Amino acid sequence: MDQFINDRNALVTDAIEGVLSSSGTGVTRLDGYPHIKVVVRTDHDRGKVALVSGGGSGHEPSHAGFVGRGMLTAAVCGEVFASPSVEAVLAGILAVSGDVGCLLIVKNYTGDRLNFGLAAERARALGHQVRMVIVDDDIAIPDAPQARGLAGTLFVHKIAGALAEQGADLDTVADTAQRVIDNTLSIGMALDTCTIPGSNKEQRLSAGKAELGLGIHGEPGVEQVDFSGARQAVTLLVDKLGQHLAATENRRSQVALINNLGGCTQLEMSILTKELLHSCIGEHIGWVIGPASLMTSLDMHGFSVSLLDVSGDDDLRAALLTEAAPRYWPGCSAVVAQPEVLPVSKGLSPSRPAPSAHEPTRTLIDSSCAILIGAEAELNALDAKSGDGDTGSTLATAARALRNRLDDMPLADTPQLLHSLAAELSQTMGGSSGVLLAIFFAAAGDAASRGSDLQQALQAGLARMQQIGGARPGDRTMIDALAPALEILDQGLPEAARAARHGADATAGMTRARAGRASYVSEANLVGHIDPGAEAVARLLEQLAT
Amino acid sequence: MDQFINDRNALVTDAIEGVLSSSGTGVTRLDGYPHIKVVVRTDHDRGKVALVSGGGSGHEPSHAGFVGRGMLTAAVCGEVFASPSVEAVLAGILAVSGDVGCLLIVKNYTGDRLNFGLAAERARALGHQVRMVIVDDDIAIPDAPQARGLAGTLFVHKIAGALAEQGADLDTVADTAQRVIDNTLSIGMALDTCTIPGSNKEQRLSAGKAELGLGIHGEPGVEQVDFSGARQAVTLLVDKLGQHLAATENRRSQVALINNLGGCTQLEMSILTKELLHSCIGEHIGWVIGPASLMTSLDMHGFSVSLLDVSGDDDLRAALLTEAAPRYWPGCSAVVAQPEVLPVSKGLSPSRPAPSAHEPTRTLIDSSCAILIGAEAELNALDAKSGDGDTGSTLATAARALRNRLDDMPLADTPQLLHSLAAELSQTMGGSSGVLLAIFFAAAGDAASRGSDLQQALQAGLARMQQIGGARPGDRTMIDALAPALEILDQGLPEAARAARHGADATAGMTRARAGRASYVSEANLVGHIDPGAEAVARLLEQLAT
Repeated sequence: MDQFINDRNALVTDAIEGVLSSSGTGVTRLDGYPHIKVVVRTDHDRGKVALVSGGGSGHEPSHAGFVGRGMLTAAVCGEVFASPSVEAVLAGILAVSGDVGCLLIVKNYTGDRLNFGLAAERARALGHQVRMVIVDDDIAIPDAPQARGLAGTLFVHKIAGALAEQGADLDTVADTAQRVIDNTLSIGMALDTCTIPGSNKEQRLSAGKAELGLGIHGEPGVEQVDFSGARQAVTLLVDKLGQHLAATENRRSQVALINNLGGCTQLEMSILTKELLHSCIGEHIGWVIGPASLMTSLDMHGFSVSLLDVSGDDDLRAALLTEAAPRYWPGCSAVVAQPEVLPVSKGLSPSRPAPSAHEPTRTLIDSSCAILIGAEAELNALDAKSGDGDTGSTLATAARALRNRLDDMPLADTPQLLHSLAAELSQTMGGSSGVLLAIFFAAAGDAASRGSDLQQALQAGLARMQQIGGARPGDRTMIDALAPALEILDQGLPEAARAARHGADATAGMTRARAGRASYVSEANLVGHIDPGAEAVARLLEQLAT
Repeated sequence: MDQFINDRNALVTDAIEGVLSSSGTGVTRLDGYPHIKVVVRTDHDRGKVALVSGGGSGHEPSHAGFVGRGMLTAAVCGEVFASPSVEAVLAGILAVSGDVGCLLIVKNYTGDRLNFGLAAERARALGHQVRMVIVDDDIAIPDAPQARGLAGTLFVHKIAGALAEQGADLDTVADTAQRVIDNTLSIGMALDTCTIPGSNKEQRLSAGKAELGLGIHGEPGVEQVDFSGARQAVTLLVDKLGQHLAATENRRSQVALINNLGGCTQLEMSILTKELLHSCIGEHIGWVIGPASLMTSLDMHGFSVSLLDVSGDDDLRAALLTEAAPRYWPGCSAVVAQPEVLPVSKGLSPSRPAPSAHEPTRTLIDSSCAILIGAEAELNALDAKSGDGDTGSTLATAARALRNRLDDMPLADTPQLLHSLAAELSQTMGGSSGVLLAIFFAAAGDAASRGSDLQQALQAGLARMQQIGGARPGDRTMIDALAPALEILDQGLPEAARAARHGADATAGMTRARAGRASYVSEANLVGHIDPGAEAVARLLEQLAT
């Protein structure tokens, strides 16, 4: 499977360069490529405790994306899914650790424990104060002697980062980090495995199946389960999490972190978030982080949920809520379980203006409708040559409906009448042309109500129709007849009709339709045929003028 | 293909609920489901210009994710890839528009233009001031009469949002929005199409091919091109963008927005970012937004780049840089083209302590090495029964190397010596056991340098080894011999040796290995066999004691 990478061996260093160049000032790296891949803060105050984390790559934005004020001081990056070396970790520690010391935050994988652990010893031998915590938040495997470290690690980064930034000493930071770990639960689920760069994806899951309790390295989940949708998926996860929440009686005592493992759409993540917060443990969740890609497994189509119990521990919650510099940190929000929805404005169903009588107007509209109804067959035939043959029927249908509404229209009030025509056409005519004519009459009514005369008002309607529809004169639309007619409407209907006819006839020579439906029709099918919309305008004016 | 959704008909409303419940206070929705799906700010000051955007769904976090202080006032959501209705748009306008009016920000698709356009007319008829801008940033189709609206729309949301928040009037906000549109270029590229919920994915692209110049609705790109990696992909995009930049002579005059169309990994996005900023137009780019999922096309494995020319237009840049409430807005950073890298600490290659002589110690170490070398074959044979048969060789190799280094070691200085043993073992022994023994000696050296006697120091080493390695007594590891021996080391070597032997023998009855390599071996293969690591410890002490 193709991927947007270059040399597989430069994968991680390429990505680090991308992170550094798009993260603003405040972060850089150590000069140790390719072996030492360490991202560090440039604005770290060595009078504060340094936080070093890291591990294999493929979990972006973890961990390099979380280096910055209020979170990590350094991230030590291994190759994809491979622990960084002891030397790389040591380089990270030495780059940031000052007199007050350094906390290593390590996910519970053997390679990471050993390499970070030995690096810690070597740093201590050099006189540095180093403590190390091991994140083991996975609850997928009951009684596992070594639970894995998953996205709950972010709780530790954020809370320890806030404390360090506030100037807490190493023991306080480390003990708090351990308290976070002790109170964190995570579990993941996926519909597919991940694609390791340069390898083919293992097809492990068939349709209708999901893996529950997975890690972040593409390893199989603890169990394969039937899958039937977002709600059921969340129910399975929540069932596992809920077993650990039995003792918690406080409502809103948990912070939930909703993590995209890489391959879920934003739409899916939002749906999963809704399901989690509406699940049977939903009322325990008082704050939410994400949904966001925080600890990914490359492109794995899955997600994980981590819970941190903050009941009676305001310090943890406060530390989560502080601002942090890394842009990949999505913040922590109080859950809004049932936002108060706002009523829809009553203006949606506009009050109909009072009907009024005006015989000349009534006659004009009635005649216009009759003309369009009479032209139905011919306009359809014309349209059939360059389109789908329904222009005549579309106009005739609207005209018939309009005729039936004449008694209810404000015929004596031009601005109101124009708006009424817009409302009628938008309801009865349908299609793009119905909307465009509605816009034409509505904008004309708008102009008329501001004092424009009828010609000016109709020209304003035309301008708006052109703006919204995007067609200009010469684009082989009704505008080619309408625009020249309105231009000289003040010279009388016969003159306007002649201009419309001239314009309509010219459309037969227009082969490059740039807007409307004819833009989808080949040139050979257009040449020699008048545009049916333009023909309708010309015919209407001609017959009204006689 | 399975997806984390429920009912396809409730897709968008489910997702909106997820967005609302995880966005904190400040946003809610109108009470118009299922037809009217409008997300609105609750904290909008109607004395400020309102911004309404929206369109079909499937582009999350656009647009609902960008509702909040400093960006949109309302987002009107259609079904996936379908424009919202006139009524829905009008409901959005009426919900937020005050006396100072409302700007509609519409991507250039016919349905959106018409529905937003008519809604604008209806709002005007109700007395609202409404302006509308149409975003057409796509440059994929040369001379296209109607360029599509792509991720450059985010520039408009952000800049117009900042101005509105600052209290600018409607014309200023709308004219500035138009200026942004006029100066924005976007183009996208993908390796695969998107999966429309409930449909099967169309397989349009074969391996080694990419589509250049695509939209955000799964429609085919303007051209299929050969694909050979991230750098080449960016070069193709940059070539198109560069044709529009010819007149720009200013360095750093452009803001680049790097958008994940949904299916790229974070790793890929960072690599693409690096390539863009190192491309031939890289030096024109002064600020960067993302990489992030901003205007997606469901799960499309592709990306787009948008450029906004801000040369000589400090207002636009300043507006981009202001803070905004929506958490999906990733911020805008100054590009750091070549961050100054930091040198790796010299502490990585520790200064070797001066060698010193101490005959009893030399004899002890030399004898220990001889014992382990002598036990190679037997320990290998023991390991072969429950592991991969190399425990003896691993220890013997390290012992041979250590013997050759005795002249260079600080034999007279116990803390230094313990550190030296750690350094030697981490270099020569390899594997997890080498790292763990290095940690054992390093932590022991650390304790010794703080004044512990040898027994205390070695016990400190053991504690650290257990912490890092995760094994406890009873887990069938060398610890089962080492721990009881160190416990009574002050009673002399013979007593310690007896305790080690007793502990080692007990491992033959331990069938539930919880740590180390034996945890991967079945119970039947363990029972009756002493753990080779424990045997090595016992044998070493027994022979030293004689």
